[in-house]
Amino acid sequence: MNGAHALMSTLTANGVDVCFANPGTSEMHFVAALDDTEGMRCVLGLFEGTVTGAADGYARMTGRPAVTLLHLGPGMANGLSNLHNALRAQSPIVNVIGDHATYHRHLDAPLTSDIEGAARPFSHWVRTTPDADSVAADTAAAVRESLRRPGRIASLILPADAAWNELAGPVSIPDAGMPDAAPADELAVDAAARLLAQATSPALVLGPGATLDEPLRAAGKIAAATGCALLTPTMTARITRGAGRVPVRRIPYVVEDAQKFLSGFDLLVMVGAKAPVSFFAYPERPSLLYPRDAQIIDLARADQDLGGALEALVDALGAAGQEAAVAPAATPATPTGELTIAKLGALIGAALPENAIVVDESITSGRTLVAETEGAAPHDWLVGTGGSIGYAMPCAVGAAVACPDRKVVVLESDGSAMYQPQALWTAAREQLDMVVLIFANRRYNILHGEMRNVGVPEFGAKARALLDIDNPAIDFVSLAASLGVPATAVSTADELAAALGRAMAERGPALIEVRL
Amino acid sequence: MNGAHALMSTLTANGVDVCFANPGTSEMHFVAALDDTEGMRCVLGLFEGTVTGAADGYARMTGRPAVTLLHLGPGMANGLSNLHNALRAQSPIVNVIGDHATYHRHLDAPLTSDIEGAARPFSHWVRTTPDADSVAADTAAAVRESLRRPGRIASLILPADAAWNELAGPVSIPDAGMPDAAPADELAVDAAARLLAQATSPALVLGPGATLDEPLRAAGKIAAATGCALLTPTMTARITRGAGRVPVRRIPYVVEDAQKFLSGFDLLVMVGAKAPVSFFAYPERPSLLYPRDAQIIDLARADQDLGGALEALVDALGAAGQEAAVAPAATPATPTGELTIAKLGALIGAALPENAIVVDESITSGRTLVAETEGAAPHDWLVGTGGSIGYAMPCAVGAAVACPDRKVVVLESDGSAMYQPQALWTAAREQLDMVVLIFANRRYNILHGEMRNVGVPEFGAKARALLDIDNPAIDFVSLAASLGVPATAVSTADELAAALGRAMAERGPALIEVRL
Repeated sequence: MNGAHALMSTLTANGVDVCFANPGTSEMHFVAALDDTEGMRCVLGLFEGTVTGAADGYARMTGRPAVTLLHLGPGMANGLSNLHNALRAQSPIVNVIGDHATYHRHLDAPLTSDIEGAARPFSHWVRTTPDADSVAADTAAAVRESLRRPGRIASLILPADAAWNELAGPVSIPDAGMPDAAPADELAVDAAARLLAQATSPALVLGPGATLDEPLRAAGKIAAATGCALLTPTMTARITRGAGRVPVRRIPYVVEDAQKFLSGFDLLVMVGAKAPVSFFAYPERPSLLYPRDAQIIDLARADQDLGGALEALVDALGAAGQEAAVAPAATPATPTGELTIAKLGALIGAALPENAIVVDESITSGRTLVAETEGAAPHDWLVGTGGSIGYAMPCAVGAAVACPDRKVVVLESDGSAMYQPQALWTAAREQLDMVVLIFANRRYNILHGEMRNVGVPEFGAKARALLDIDNPAIDFVSLAASLGVPATAVSTADELAAALGRAMAERGPALIEVRL
Repeated sequence: MNGAHALMSTLTANGVDVCFANPGTSEMHFVAALDDTEGMRCVLGLFEGTVTGAADGYARMTGRPAVTLLHLGPGMANGLSNLHNALRAQSPIVNVIGDHATYHRHLDAPLTSDIEGAARPFSHWVRTTPDADSVAADTAAAVRESLRRPGRIASLILPADAAWNELAGPVSIPDAGMPDAAPADELAVDAAARLLAQATSPALVLGPGATLDEPLRAAGKIAAATGCALLTPTMTARITRGAGRVPVRRIPYVVEDAQKFLSGFDLLVMVGAKAPVSFFAYPERPSLLYPRDAQIIDLARADQDLGGALEALVDALGAAGQEAAVAPAATPATPTGELTIAKLGALIGAALPENAIVVDESITSGRTLVAETEGAAPHDWLVGTGGSIGYAMPCAVGAAVACPDRKVVVLESDGSAMYQPQALWTAAREQLDMVVLIFANRRYNILHGEMRNVGVPEFGAKARALLDIDNPAIDFVSLAASLGVPATAVSTADELAAALGRAMAERGPALIEVRL
């Protein structure tokens, strides 16, 4: 058995059975080992951003790590921005990054770089395995580290000779184990219970992991018992929502809106979340979004058992018998006529099939989406957690691989789509059940707003040229077709409704360019 | 004057007048400052790999830095792989990377990351400017560092408040200066002269900077006087070549070929180059490509004045009156009939217009290109120096911006093209005079070879699925059209000759999908 086989066997023995890959020469033994390994599904991306973004989506939907296969420093670098998003989503991921053979490194061949240095800012754990005999133990360590709560990025660097050399010692495939979450803290639960009872206008702020169905039901009982609001940060990895689910409100992105939204609360109980701060700083505006006289307490840190903490709080409040308020089913009427941003929410809400996975990178086109889908058929809602755009199509690829029986709906702004368009090819190759809506306003519309936010109300031709992408206009129908995804363009509400109807009725990838 | 204006003024005052940009919120003041600044051309990329790759191409053709504008850590990360190529090309580049306002950083908002840590592996110099009053001096330092021989990557991190705050002190725009190259070393020149006279079969190995017209003419005189061969590493940033130019031979990529190629030499005189090593290590094959009993000496290090060193060697050899052998004009006959890789070289050699800039990322499709173009009309030849694929189209964008009167010809393999296709949009937007040939064999053909090189002669379905990209086949004509570049597909030699003829006769961007 060589190192590559030891790696593969350790991964599959520990339940890591999906590999998103963009390999190169230094990973050829890993690729060869695939042929001899049962139970590892391998999905190719044409660009590393697809690979890491897909691993993020897979982790968000399964809670388990996929393995990525990346080619030395620059190949990994192409995947770093979506690793940043994954890190902020608290997604467990095991990266395997090939490197030169150990004895070749000091020669500084052209592809040599400081891989550990480049991986570290976007990983919780980085290790270079020294030789074939260390591969199994290091791989198990990587899997274990990725599963440490709340979910971590583990980057294992695999020199080519560690992959191709035969093991000298006996083969033993270690058990990575599943690290337990730290239990809820009784004192914190008691404090939260007492403060909730005293507060005039309290809220729970639910971080990633606390916005899935079960913890939301516990939170709903707490809300019923105490009158507290249920909030979540603007960017939360995954929210289980729709008709029959306990609704949670996202804190708005725009500073003024967020400040106003939070202004009435006198107590914020954090459940694996951090006290809300603005996404960016702006001149003369606050960074902290909550009232300075509000009390902020932690019910549980992100690495603790958030569901357990919420259940403990339910018990401490004697709220087990309470009935959580859930969103009533409410399918919006399908709008007709001219297509406007205001109508998008209702059009999508009406079309959303049961159990859909919505991957939202709609930016400024998405203003009405959240409200109009609250009573839609039950679904999951994923957003870009790290603020690096280009996450949605890759993330959707991973979600579709994880959940082949669920329709994945990508809500994508045109500017964002152009960061990782290669993901469409993987969707076509794997025939993923995924429909991509491109909201084509042909500008970085959010930056028009940001220019005003930083105090530049009027801007000239040079600035405008950096904020508008209408010259040339991108033809997303041709782009999708070039990558094997059937596509159509719509410019009225009726056309969009019809196109959505068709896309939801059929399986497989499709793209709709929504001309706004 | 605010920090952003100080930055812009310092750049333009020091001759940095082209900005390749993909800005975000933290760079809005930089964008606003553009409108008030004369003499800064700003070119938008839809993805940061276009931005950094274009800066590389611009630097290769001008010897001067462009400035890139990148959005925090993940935005910069998207540009790192082409920065790696630029670093290996010894291209001077000034990166300006926006960051959160200094007082906002500790809040760990979603887009926060260790920008310095991520920049360092791909930069020679990294600095975070602390405040508006430091911006001018730090910008001048960045320009100066980028120009240190032989050319360096300088990354300046600009917190948002350092950009938007007014300067407290008086404004003074510093002169970056132009660092001198270290002069040639007399002892090294004397040693080289003496050893060249004694050697049976000597060669000069010319690194980047020594393969342009003037140093090559000096090298040609040395060759005429001593009979030495003129070689250059496989991956050299820019070679000035064609009819009337002193030809230099590239060391082959494949280990066996390179070993054989170098086996006869008993003396290698390095001129800003490193002793040749294999690109990757392979089991049971050598990493060092030169004969172990050959003598290796440095005429000049990369940071020294390479042209001066060659001139000094000419003088030491008394070779000033020698006539350098140059490539005779030789336009290959245009092949007809079936299209094969073997015919590509002649087809392109026959079509190449005078003064063309060839950007070569043809990988396995390019085997006949170099030989068949040696006698073509005089041109420059650029190759991927760092081995990270996806460099060619971005690099071509920068070369075309640098040299608007020269035709840029991109020789691109299909797998590589899919790493940075966004560069086509910038070519369309700026109406760059650039023709892209896509060699579509629908596989990572080099990896088929590499699998065999690492000792896997037969490979199965899973491995093959990671090496072939024919499912679905990518339609490059649609892809180019979607991004505003007119395109055509050819599948015979005659069709390619006709398409090349049209593309060379017309100005502006065009793409030809060459179906192999």
